Amino acid sequence: MITFKEAYNSVLQHTVDYGTEQVLLKDAVGRVLSVDIKADRDFPPFNRATKDGIALSFSAINDGQSLFKIEAVIPAGNPTIELKDKTACVEIMTGAVVPKSTDVVVMYEDVVIHNGFAKLQKQPVKGQNIHIKGSDELKGATVLRKNTLITAAEIGVLSAVGAAKVWVKKLPKITTIATGNELVEVAEVPLPHQIRKSNINSLYAALLNEHILAQTLHLQDSKEAIKDALEVALKTNDVLLLSGGVSKGKFDFLPIALEELGVEKVFHKVLQRPGKPFWFGVHKATNTVIFSFPGNPASTFANYHIYFKPWLNKSLGLTVSNNYVILNEELDNKGSLTLFLRVKVTFTNGKLLANRIIENGSGDLTSLANCDGFICIAPNKNSYNKGTLVPFIQTRRLL
Amino acid sequence: MITFKEAYNSVLQHTVDYGTEQVLLKDAVGRVLSVDIKADRDFPPFNRATKDGIALSFSAINDGQSLFKIEAVIPAGNPTIELKDKTACVEIMTGAVVPKSTDVVVMYEDVVIHNGFAKLQKQPVKGQNIHIKGSDELKGATVLRKNTLITAAEIGVLSAVGAAKVWVKKLPKITTIATGNELVEVAEVPLPHQIRKSNINSLYAALLNEHILAQTLHLQDSKEAIKDALEVALKTNDVLLLSGGVSKGKFDFLPIALEELGVEKVFHKVLQRPGKPFWFGVHKATNTVIFSFPGNPASTFANYHIYFKPWLNKSLGLTVSNNYVILNEELDNKGSLTLFLRVKVTFTNGKLLANRIIENGSGDLTSLANCDGFICIAPNKNSYNKGTLVPFIQTRRLL
Repeated sequence: MITFKEAYNSVLQHTVDYGTEQVLLKDAVGRVLSVDIKADRDFPPFNRATKDGIALSFSAINDGQSLFKIEAVIPAGNPTIELKDKTACVEIMTGAVVPKSTDVVVMYEDVVIHNGFAKLQKQPVKGQNIHIKGSDELKGATVLRKNTLITAAEIGVLSAVGAAKVWVKKLPKITTIATGNELVEVAEVPLPHQIRKSNINSLYAALLNEHILAQTLHLQDSKEAIKDALEVALKTNDVLLLSGGVSKGKFDFLPIALEELGVEKVFHKVLQRPGKPFWFGVHKATNTVIFSFPGNPASTFANYHIYFKPWLNKSLGLTVSNNYVILNEELDNKGSLTLFLRVKVTFTNGKLLANRIIENGSGDLTSLANCDGFICIAPNKNSYNKGTLVPFIQTRRLL
Repeated sequence: MITFKEAYNSVLQHTVDYGTEQVLLKDAVGRVLSVDIKADRDFPPFNRATKDGIALSFSAINDGQSLFKIEAVIPAGNPTIELKDKTACVEIMTGAVVPKSTDVVVMYEDVVIHNGFAKLQKQPVKGQNIHIKGSDELKGATVLRKNTLITAAEIGVLSAVGAAKVWVKKLPKITTIATGNELVEVAEVPLPHQIRKSNINSLYAALLNEHILAQTLHLQDSKEAIKDALEVALKTNDVLLLSGGVSKGKFDFLPIALEELGVEKVFHKVLQRPGKPFWFGVHKATNTVIFSFPGNPASTFANYHIYFKPWLNKSLGLTVSNNYVILNEELDNKGSLTLFLRVKVTFTNGKLLANRIIENGSGDLTSLANCDGFICIAPNKNSYNKGTLVPFIQTRRLL
């Protein structure tokens, strides 16, 4: 059996580039940019007034002048004009083009306007309240880098440079597959020996957060049925996320069915808890990657976040970040398995402190709703002291 | 002019409960639960095998027996049976119902099976590998609390208890409105004095993250046009998010138009930078809340996160969290305005450290794509030392 580190590195060696596609700007949120974005003009594109007030030539102020005739009123959105008479001024609005021959904007609060004249109440500073053309970015400058996750701020930048359509990374086509005769639909009332499907719904929801609309499938524990369905699924998906059917049980047909279909097993079983019987493989003929998770809720949920999420991020060109939290209690792990323990994380004085939550094994579903993620505890360690930094796999947005 | 604290508290005093609605489970991700969710049965609903192996009666082991005849094979999904002969055993699969009169499951790894008999290789512990009925949750127990954000983990729990439809908080209907003659569509090539609309697209994207599909509107700087459009908008929306037109300019018709339409001004202008000319009001006749942000990109973006986001969270019953980060450099703010400074936040040894990013005033759009959020720096402070905890308003998912 391989170690967690070996399994993790192996999964990350099997990332796939799914290419690029162009989407409308409004559909680009949450997607990953596949090209550098350059400024199509200077930003700002003109000397821009940042306050409402008057624009004038600083040279006149330098000559001791403090009363200025108002030549014009310039709203935002008007073409550039020139102040002909350097002893005069114009009224100017925020966002408007600062006229040629003017180099200072004095806000209304510092001026008295009377009978078509503006009188300065305060000595201004040359250049004040003018956002100089090109001072944020020059035309041609890279304003967003390839492999950036597009959030609200990036949408603002893309809008400003005219990116009505955006080149983004394609997302993999994914089907989540539940196996097991004990499973019934959520809307059904289960018989005493049955349970409702929860894992594939949870995976569906997790994938929605990645902007992936997954298909879902339920297979009975029959080798032929499993093989037939997987054959189709391999042809029509980039990734299969399976839950259940990978243990040592007599009806765990998945590993054999997958191998008979030509899926190459990369590994089966990892020295970890929960999630030990994890089966991972690739189908070279269709370029499909198969994550086959053990069916316990905590096992599927943990392995999705431990393995699939970094795999997806790396496949999309995003940084795979390793986060650490501070252990707020003592722990040990004398066994040979890497442990993924459910924790609540609190922000205390700018620090991320992790406290274990009480759980009841890998079948315990409700504890997953109470935790913020898993801490990763290495095997064969006599003790982890309070205050130790430990790797953290988050399962919930914290900040 | 009021202080930031006064403005913030005032906004949070104007939250609105938009009621509840029932949605399909698959549409519930990202929504807020409006009812407590109770277990409709025990969890697990039966004594459940957590390993593949054999189930037997511990009393036989206690009597010194180590070889057991296999009576049956029990897959997951089969009804409960009883082990009649307490000196025999059954093969059992993970997820299956542990038979009556058995109280221990020994995994295949610890058993040798030959000719219909199982021989123990290791002394088991009573109760091992059995997930006891009701040990996670008893029927009737509250498994999820009202006012919980529904993520993948909650979808798992909702599935398990049969919540095919889920009662959630209704989201407000929102229109984002840009004002200004200088603004053109993203797909257009602007004239030299024009700029493309970026703020309302950025707001649209930010609202999408909250699962709100906003309408967008662009108004020219004409008092009548603004008033006509706002009259309709007030009747058809719960919230208006406006950008621009609230300064002291001659064409800033929004405050007067809003007041003429019967919108009650709660405040106008806050002692802060960016975002000072923020106008906030409520229209009692239609129960519409109006956030009218100054039009500079950083001002709109900052105020959305500073004011609107906590307002939305509180309206939906979510906790309004106050997060702090550790300042990683020295700062001062001798002025009278609360400053919201753009920062990058790094995780270093479990700590969140904030470093200022270079920015170029409130018109600087690209700096918003480079920051993780704003730190809030109180006015009239001689100095903030490196290491000081400062309030943090995040604008991007960090963890």
